[in-house]
Amino acid sequence: MTERLVVVGGDAAGMSAAAQARRRRSDLEIAVFERSQYTSYSACGIPYWIGDEVEEMDALIARSPAQHRANGLDVQTGCEVVGIDPRGRSVQVRDVSTGATRHEGYDHLLIATGSLPNRPDLPGINAPNVHGVQVLDDGVALRATLDLPDTRRVVVAGGGYIGLEIAEAAKSRGFDVTVIDRSHTPIGVFDDDIGEYIAAAIRGLGIGLVVDQPIAAIETVDGRATGVRTADGSLYPADVVVLGLGVRPNVSLARDAGIPIGDAGGIVVDQRMHTPIDGVWAAGDCVESFHRVSGRHVVIALGTHANKQGRVAGINLGGGYATFPGVIGTAVTKVCAWEVGRTGLSEREAHQAGFGFVTAAVDATTRAGYYPGAQPIRVKVLAERGRGRLLGAQIVGREGAAKRIDVLATAIWNEMAVSEVINLDLSYAPPFAPVWDPVLVAARQAAAAVERAG
Amino acid sequence: MTERLVVVGGDAAGMSAAAQARRRRSDLEIAVFERSQYTSYSACGIPYWIGDEVEEMDALIARSPAQHRANGLDVQTGCEVVGIDPRGRSVQVRDVSTGATRHEGYDHLLIATGSLPNRPDLPGINAPNVHGVQVLDDGVALRATLDLPDTRRVVVAGGGYIGLEIAEAAKSRGFDVTVIDRSHTPIGVFDDDIGEYIAAAIRGLGIGLVVDQPIAAIETVDGRATGVRTADGSLYPADVVVLGLGVRPNVSLARDAGIPIGDAGGIVVDQRMHTPIDGVWAAGDCVESFHRVSGRHVVIALGTHANKQGRVAGINLGGGYATFPGVIGTAVTKVCAWEVGRTGLSEREAHQAGFGFVTAAVDATTRAGYYPGAQPIRVKVLAERGRGRLLGAQIVGREGAAKRIDVLATAIWNEMAVSEVINLDLSYAPPFAPVWDPVLVAARQAAAAVERAG
Repeated sequence: MTERLVVVGGDAAGMSAAAQARRRRSDLEIAVFERSQYTSYSACGIPYWIGDEVEEMDALIARSPAQHRANGLDVQTGCEVVGIDPRGRSVQVRDVSTGATRHEGYDHLLIATGSLPNRPDLPGINAPNVHGVQVLDDGVALRATLDLPDTRRVVVAGGGYIGLEIAEAAKSRGFDVTVIDRSHTPIGVFDDDIGEYIAAAIRGLGIGLVVDQPIAAIETVDGRATGVRTADGSLYPADVVVLGLGVRPNVSLARDAGIPIGDAGGIVVDQRMHTPIDGVWAAGDCVESFHRVSGRHVVIALGTHANKQGRVAGINLGGGYATFPGVIGTAVTKVCAWEVGRTGLSEREAHQAGFGFVTAAVDATTRAGYYPGAQPIRVKVLAERGRGRLLGAQIVGREGAAKRIDVLATAIWNEMAVSEVINLDLSYAPPFAPVWDPVLVAARQAAAAVERAG
Repeated sequence: MTERLVVVGGDAAGMSAAAQARRRRSDLEIAVFERSQYTSYSACGIPYWIGDEVEEMDALIARSPAQHRANGLDVQTGCEVVGIDPRGRSVQVRDVSTGATRHEGYDHLLIATGSLPNRPDLPGINAPNVHGVQVLDDGVALRATLDLPDTRRVVVAGGGYIGLEIAEAAKSRGFDVTVIDRSHTPIGVFDDDIGEYIAAAIRGLGIGLVVDQPIAAIETVDGRATGVRTADGSLYPADVVVLGLGVRPNVSLARDAGIPIGDAGGIVVDQRMHTPIDGVWAAGDCVESFHRVSGRHVVIALGTHANKQGRVAGINLGGGYATFPGVIGTAVTKVCAWEVGRTGLSEREAHQAGFGFVTAAVDATTRAGYYPGAQPIRVKVLAERGRGRLLGAQIVGREGAAKRIDVLATAIWNEMAVSEVINLDLSYAPPFAPVWDPVLVAARQAAAAVERAG
């Protein structure tokens, strides 16, 4: 009898898994249930479409449902999975347009339900002009509100990656934009000293930036949001409110089915992406990942992890063997002309994980100082006391700066000490780096700091 | 009694060592003898000054003799060391302007004599308008010849890094430029498939490129070069000839003093940069380095190694402890809008080192495909059969492509298998990379090739 794989969710993780399984096991029947009309799109690209840097929404779609169907995948859009029965090996599927439900059996199940934007239980939070930016439909709705003739003032609640990207996009289209963040500097996963650069860049764009202020309420008139009130009582008028308050794993379906959820709030999986429940796999934003530096389990919603995890799940579902070895918290973004990247642990994370460490930061240039187009770059590193293991790094700078974080990520992955990083054979030529790459100079400073700290 | 360190050669390696030793041992007397009038300059920057991208020659000088003197280093320019007596612990120094010689004693000696451009014993090779490009004085002389009113045609003998950089510089200033190379594609340290991109880029600039042709002679009239004749008898008229035939370690001084020279032609040093001769150290282009992938000793003339080795020697001379752990052959250059980088072993080098390996190459974009400014990038990797250890990588592409070689260099340094590279937590956001970074895609393809090869 033909075995059947059911995939819940048709974006990065789900479709990567389905495609891999298809390639490896032609005998497997594969059905994908996706709530929206879209598959395999770049959620990370939404802000650039909002900002008109990407002209067509379709450009964000790597592969449409029709293309997947042509590859032998039974993709059913407009179909939301509303229940899982792991004992009976079936899911309950609701047709989004008719509301009708039906049961679909499976031999293997992959949960790839992604994440949900945080939407704190505040007055006014459900007004129609308060938008999350998580799935493509959210982007469509936000664009529609921005395109209303009276929309002039945009308030972004939360200064994380997505919040800032949307803020810049809206500003570039001429809106009056304010970002409100509860932390002291935006993008709280960076240390404050790096965050100050981000804050300056945001303000330099003419975007209002309010820090150290939690959101207290969304003010409404006739059900529509008209402003955001902060904890100190200030009111920031708004024609549209964008929620950039982070995301959480979308696990209610899994939890209701008795599939274990970890302390960090994601579905528990082993290295092959299998949950503790027989026949049930999970991948993408909805799962917990092992953090190789802190040794803890974390939830990090990022397309690159979703793709890798989906691939691993798909190889295993297809009869192969693959493992996902964990994450180290690498991330990068662009704020106007500034690039910021991070990997490993921030100072706060290193404290929380119980490490004794030193830090070093250097200011340098992306190219030889005398070479045209040399841009500023600041590299900060954290090194463990004692052996000097590299624990984390953050970079801020102009064009050509942030992607250097990958070198430090690869060094952290391999548990290198900063004294070892110093001598790495990195590429050098005047158009690409000073003779001592800034990454190496930072490692030198950190090694000296480790030595001093004893 | 005060101990004395004598340094032979005042560029990258020599001055890095002197500065480190100075910082760590204030009681040490440090004398540096430098043949030219310059110290601590970027030889790699010469082509950009020739091409007017860097306006002032002084910009290439990181630290002048006067600045070094202010830091407590007795820098003596215009002084060439012409003999070493390791038993008597003295050097013979010749004043370049007067020709007078004297003896100078030392307790510790650092040889940092750099490299010499290859100048094969061909008719006409010593004509005054045949220029090497190795030290700053060479650059000064080349500029002077280019500035002569009748100079129109430039022939570059040898299409290595320096040769191509000079060719592009001369072309950008309006000269008629031809490059003649004995290999099938320029920059022979790249595999031919990557070299084809470089060849196309060169020709795209309007530079003539002659391949598979060794130089047979420099034609002269009244002692001045008028053209370059190749092995097939063709004549390429020239008003100036630039030698880009590679460099060799400048070791005659060391050899004459009985200091051991290795099979690759460089001074033999241990990991602390000490030669087998008591009290004698060496660093920079004149020494052999351990290649961590091939396991052999190699000579690689590159400012970044010279700086690192000088630092290591200086720490040890200053009473500290440091080692130089070797090289893996990382290099990068820019040809017009094309960037090329390499690390580890090329196919030929891997064969020579006795490895069984597979290759994989992918064509991708530097940013998400839909993001403005996404540029083409080709990543090629070599992986060892069996475990799939990453042995080498080459990248060619447009802006933002080549510096990614550093990620692969760090992976090679840590002896990662391509199957491990696949899951590296590299940074992702649409302005910086596709959701699968091209480096990871190449690793995926290579891992599949390793699996197929068994």
